[in-house]
Amino acid sequence: MAAAAPQSVNFEEVSKAFTQHFYMTFDTNREGLASLYTDQSLMTYEGTQIMGQAAIMNKYRSLGFNQAKHNIKTQDAHPNPLQPNAVIVFVTGDLQIEGQEYPMKFAEVFHLVQTGASFIIANHIFRLNIG
Amino acid sequence: MAAAAPQSVNFEEVSKAFTQHFYMTFDTNREGLASLYTDQSLMTYEGTQIMGQAAIMNKYRSLGFNQAKHNIKTQDAHPNPLQPNAVIVFVTGDLQIEGQEYPMKFAEVFHLVQTGASFIIANHIFRLNIG
Repeated sequence: MAAAAPQSVNFEEVSKAFTQHFYMTFDTNREGLASLYTDQSLMTYEGTQIMGQAAIMNKYRSLGFNQAKHNIKTQDAHPNPLQPNAVIVFVTGDLQIEGQEYPMKFAEVFHLVQTGASFIIANHIFRLNIG
Repeated sequence: MAAAAPQSVNFEEVSKAFTQHFYMTFDTNREGLASLYTDQSLMTYEGTQIMGQAAIMNKYRSLGFNQAKHNIKTQDAHPNPLQPNAVIVFVTGDLQIEGQEYPMKFAEVFHLVQTGASFIIANHIFRLNIG
């Protein structure tokens, strides 16, 4: 990702830099998300389990909409007590999809792990919070 | 928690046993949640950061309602790739609080870590998904 990792992880700063980068990239250049995932990354998207950068990017390409806008309402971050350079990020907000009149509530969690000078997404779980 | 940890962690089974136990305990005997937390547990409840079993239980006692009912809509589980005996659990659903006409959407994430024969909550982030 764009934000360089500090020498000693400040989980709040990592979380803010990550979410800013992630949602801006999702909403303006979805293909750019690829660099955030590795072949070991795990994603669950609305209940569908996906593993690895290639499969995850295929999922992003098949979402059925091109334009989306995320409006972040809350963002919480935790250190992972088992791993000094890992951060848990939890986000809730509204997702506005092109052609839909109203935005939808969503919630998602990211488990970020420092690899070299940056962070990758080890775990990613997304859910709409509707119905 | 009630469910014994298997020799090799099945993250789906751990997640199901945990969520069943957690929400039944929350809704029928909130004090019983204490055994799920340690002095190192981290909780963020609606943006308020809390550390340790004692402070977390004080938070549970100060929620302002006695009776609640969780209706789980989705439950997703991931292994923690950095730690063989840790599980990430993500839940969305409806929370019905006594005296309120309508339930509220909520979402929360748990990072569970095996300690001996059972699992404790290392990280817990809760958010209402409203407004």
